Amino acid sequence: MSISGRLTGARARAPLHAGLFETWLRRGRTASSYSASSEPSKVRALIYGNHGDPAKVIQLKNLELTAVEGSDVHVRMLAAPVNPSDINMIQGNYGLLPKLPAVGGNEGIGQVVAVGSSVSRLKPGDWVIPASAGLGTWRTEAVFSEEALIGIPKDIPLQSAATLGVNPCTAYRMLVDFEQLQPGDSVIQNASNSGVGQAVIQIASALRLKTINVVRDRPDIQKLTDRLKNLGADYVLTEEELRIPETKTIFKDVPLPRLALNCVGGKSSTELLRHLAPGGTMVTYGGMAKQPVTASVSLLIFKDLRLRGFWLSQWKKNHSSDEFKELILTLCDLIRQGQLTAPACSEVPLQDYQQALEASVKPFVSSKQILTM
Amino acid sequence: MSISGRLTGARARAPLHAGLFETWLRRGRTASSYSASSEPSKVRALIYGNHGDPAKVIQLKNLELTAVEGSDVHVRMLAAPVNPSDINMIQGNYGLLPKLPAVGGNEGIGQVVAVGSSVSRLKPGDWVIPASAGLGTWRTEAVFSEEALIGIPKDIPLQSAATLGVNPCTAYRMLVDFEQLQPGDSVIQNASNSGVGQAVIQIASALRLKTINVVRDRPDIQKLTDRLKNLGADYVLTEEELRIPETKTIFKDVPLPRLALNCVGGKSSTELLRHLAPGGTMVTYGGMAKQPVTASVSLLIFKDLRLRGFWLSQWKKNHSSDEFKELILTLCDLIRQGQLTAPACSEVPLQDYQQALEASVKPFVSSKQILTM
Repeated sequence: MSISGRLTGARARAPLHAGLFETWLRRGRTASSYSASSEPSKVRALIYGNHGDPAKVIQLKNLELTAVEGSDVHVRMLAAPVNPSDINMIQGNYGLLPKLPAVGGNEGIGQVVAVGSSVSRLKPGDWVIPASAGLGTWRTEAVFSEEALIGIPKDIPLQSAATLGVNPCTAYRMLVDFEQLQPGDSVIQNASNSGVGQAVIQIASALRLKTINVVRDRPDIQKLTDRLKNLGADYVLTEEELRIPETKTIFKDVPLPRLALNCVGGKSSTELLRHLAPGGTMVTYGGMAKQPVTASVSLLIFKDLRLRGFWLSQWKKNHSSDEFKELILTLCDLIRQGQLTAPACSEVPLQDYQQALEASVKPFVSSKQILTM
Repeated sequence: MSISGRLTGARARAPLHAGLFETWLRRGRTASSYSASSEPSKVRALIYGNHGDPAKVIQLKNLELTAVEGSDVHVRMLAAPVNPSDINMIQGNYGLLPKLPAVGGNEGIGQVVAVGSSVSRLKPGDWVIPASAGLGTWRTEAVFSEEALIGIPKDIPLQSAATLGVNPCTAYRMLVDFEQLQPGDSVIQNASNSGVGQAVIQIASALRLKTINVVRDRPDIQKLTDRLKNLGADYVLTEEELRIPETKTIFKDVPLPRLALNCVGGKSSTELLRHLAPGGTMVTYGGMAKQPVTASVSLLIFKDLRLRGFWLSQWKKNHSSDEFKELILTLCDLIRQGQLTAPACSEVPLQDYQQALEASVKPFVSSKQILTM
């Protein structure tokens, strides 16, 4: 999220991880030290100087690159998605906020152009993704520090690589870290058509877990249902269908879910809790409804339900970069085996970012917006 | 909670634990098999035939005792408290409900009068408490099964023994089982003047944990504050004081609590969550405000707060009676060392139960009602 162009006085380095990111912010770099060039340049970046509506605050600007020295890595970005968390960060509604101005985007796939003399793990031609949130991926090129990047295999599709580091990682960790699920166990989730939701369906299917997938009703619901079932969804229900008593017949065929994944909050999460098995856990990773999670006292006490949250940035803080790399390689295996595909994507050239930003906040847009550079 | 008097056709046995309790209920004993004698008898019991307002549905009736055979233990009850969970059970708002009619009360101290030929662990004169909820302790005498009872040391005060098996057990398990707290760590709780709350203050103090104790404001607040501080409370605050920014100065002297204990729900629990350390746990064990627990999505995701519930009956289901006995002996050690005293008690003779039931549902009654037989 830092601007690795030429800055007045000092070169800024992309943050390595959230902890360093905060340190970097505390150094007191001021907005006036930002000096994006207004002359034409090959480096273009989507920059915001204030928090607010992304369509209003994001601007395409030119930046100059710094020289590549020491542990520097010159990266040409290939593609970068627009994720809900990118939007939240620009709006100022996120757990980690950059010093402004900042380059938007936290995820994407880049290719190494050149490396500094002390870089050991990467070489020109390698594919890289950000090690942490806050790198600022919506730009054509950048000079990052080696530690800010993770090399990934080049034998997976570009769209999978561009969308690998956030949503599938979140889905995998939530499926594995909270409940010890066995093949045949079930998982219930809402927002099942989101990037995370689609990854949950596929990874759960690979782990032989049954999924009960809740979506908002919409005109083309059958098309969506078919698409999610093609990904491996066992059940697809609308929020309204989840509330009717007949839904319980599902649990003649599958065990009550011990894990619920909540990206919505409000009433939707109340319904997920209602269907959890005793002792089960609901993990909240998003709040699309902008309403809190509410649990009756009796569900907590007598049904022993557990409410947790998941944030990939926190997981990365608590784990080594080797553990993150191992996670990435596990997901790449699933991709190669055809068990994990990228969500339906709409590729949008960087200069048409307005179109991508608008589409990303529209309801019922089933394709992920991917900026191409 | 069963009625161990003489029943038509078959003798009823007090349930051993919640699992057996349910089995016992499933045997299909009907209300008509209940035959409390209306003739004068030495055995008197507080019985309810319907769920509802305790003051209206509870009646003092006479029962006859069954003969003492096999694994039977004839117990004379000495004292039995009126706990909030007893009231909830009578009202029908509890996770475990007895077949009706039933004897009220889930806790108390009794003395063994006689034992059947196959009883090995208990002898006449021993003190006993119920092994599980559902025994029906509000009576003068009963014949229970040996497995339904736990023998306890006789060298602790009677009021401590009568109030040992529910509230101090709940307090101890909540302090120990959810977060690995070290001396100097802090705990925040609401309803700090409740039976559990007072036990939390004392056990936490014995474990060298700091307590931040929230109570409802009341006319004699200084008296209450002094009393709780005498028990070992480090800070005593009203719900209103907890909301003002000045409260944060407490956390210059003590670390942010990693554990919150919630007996209230609603706004009070929202305030507890607001003061928890990142990654901390709030354990709900009661819902006095009759409002659900609400957590913002961002507290769950970005602050990694964890919401759990605790129910001693469930803990007992998941643990052996030896483990429960070990817990009881640990608490008896604290009692002997003067580190755990019974809450302020008002002893009320069994026949004056109406007075005890009324006092137990009045707000701001600071003493525990104990029925004496």
